[in-house]
Amino acid sequence: MAKATLTISSKNYSSWSLRGWLLTKFSGLEFDEIVTAADDPSARAEILLLSSSILVPCLRHEGAVVWDTLAIGEYLNDLIPDAGLLPSERIPRAHCRSICGEIHSGFTTLRSSLPVNIKGHFPGFKIWSRAQADIDRVCAIWSDCLEKSGGPFLFGHRSMADAMYAPVVTRFLTYDVQIGPALASYAKRVMSLPEMQEWVEAAREEPAEIEELEVEY
Amino acid sequence: MAKATLTISSKNYSSWSLRGWLLTKFSGLEFDEIVTAADDPSARAEILLLSSSILVPCLRHEGAVVWDTLAIGEYLNDLIPDAGLLPSERIPRAHCRSICGEIHSGFTTLRSSLPVNIKGHFPGFKIWSRAQADIDRVCAIWSDCLEKSGGPFLFGHRSMADAMYAPVVTRFLTYDVQIGPALASYAKRVMSLPEMQEWVEAAREEPAEIEELEVEY
Repeated sequence: MAKATLTISSKNYSSWSLRGWLLTKFSGLEFDEIVTAADDPSARAEILLLSSSILVPCLRHEGAVVWDTLAIGEYLNDLIPDAGLLPSERIPRAHCRSICGEIHSGFTTLRSSLPVNIKGHFPGFKIWSRAQADIDRVCAIWSDCLEKSGGPFLFGHRSMADAMYAPVVTRFLTYDVQIGPALASYAKRVMSLPEMQEWVEAAREEPAEIEELEVEY
Repeated sequence: MAKATLTISSKNYSSWSLRGWLLTKFSGLEFDEIVTAADDPSARAEILLLSSSILVPCLRHEGAVVWDTLAIGEYLNDLIPDAGLLPSERIPRAHCRSICGEIHSGFTTLRSSLPVNIKGHFPGFKIWSRAQADIDRVCAIWSDCLEKSGGPFLFGHRSMADAMYAPVVTRFLTYDVQIGPALASYAKRVMSLPEMQEWVEAAREEPAEIEELEVEY
């Protein structure tokens, strides 16, 4: 299998890049990372939620160009079904896709008022009530999945769903969001994945020039 | 195969309901329609973009509960691959999923400033510049697909992509959006699909009580 490339933007700020990168790592497909420049207009537009559409991350593999996180997940699942990106059984598979779709199109208040910022930490951050409704819905989704699957990940084995919700896990840590003990240990488990540790370490070392984005937000 | 159910909200106002319904119709799966009441809070929240997440349309089929349009499309494609919801070749399949993902998570300005309203018609409607950027991106996507596939639908045979973009087609008609002749004939082709005609007719007959939503928007 030829070497793929994955274009991503900021490791500290981009939730979509984290999702696409984790999905590709989970799949086992080898890839080279291409990081768009911090001052690239489309990278800025994506991170600042100004873009009409989201074209990063983008996976290129043997002629295929895949520029959406769910499309990347489904592409990789078709290519390498044994990687377990999706549960193989019909009912949990439908459930997994439903919650992945939900985070993909929804939760706009959570996205805009608690932006991903892996390096940041804001204890006692004041959460707006509409963002709290999003947080409550995330907690309901996680509890339901963990209860049905028995854990340790949302669908037992780590899957597309854990990758799609990973940026929410980092938001909860950044903004000191209080969640129950079972969900807190799920969040800890996600943060302990070797792939997450690799990403977080790289986010911490990200060059300072992208920092200005924070001020403009 | 047991009879499925599909829960939808307004046929005149709900873009997500139209997508889920078309996908299910295209798949050939038989289903009973369940229409949520016009004054149902979650239906209102979805249509008014106030919901933290979107739980309608929802397909229920032999124990599976699928509540996101992309998840519905993928579920049906797994179940009935011969329905051609996705292209079978790897590269167009990846392309199809990418543009479906793009409309699923993006185009927020288009969604909020040109809401679906099948009965409505506003000739000379003034389009805000950020909505125009979304429109331009939709046109670029359609042109690229039609050129690559040769038409008559985005990926040759009608697919998930035509269902995902169908509400955009209705928006263009409602708000008198000017597009080039090749795209206008694609739009006409979508509107001529028997499934679309059935939907539009039902939207026109939708009881008046839901009309008040328009005022509150």
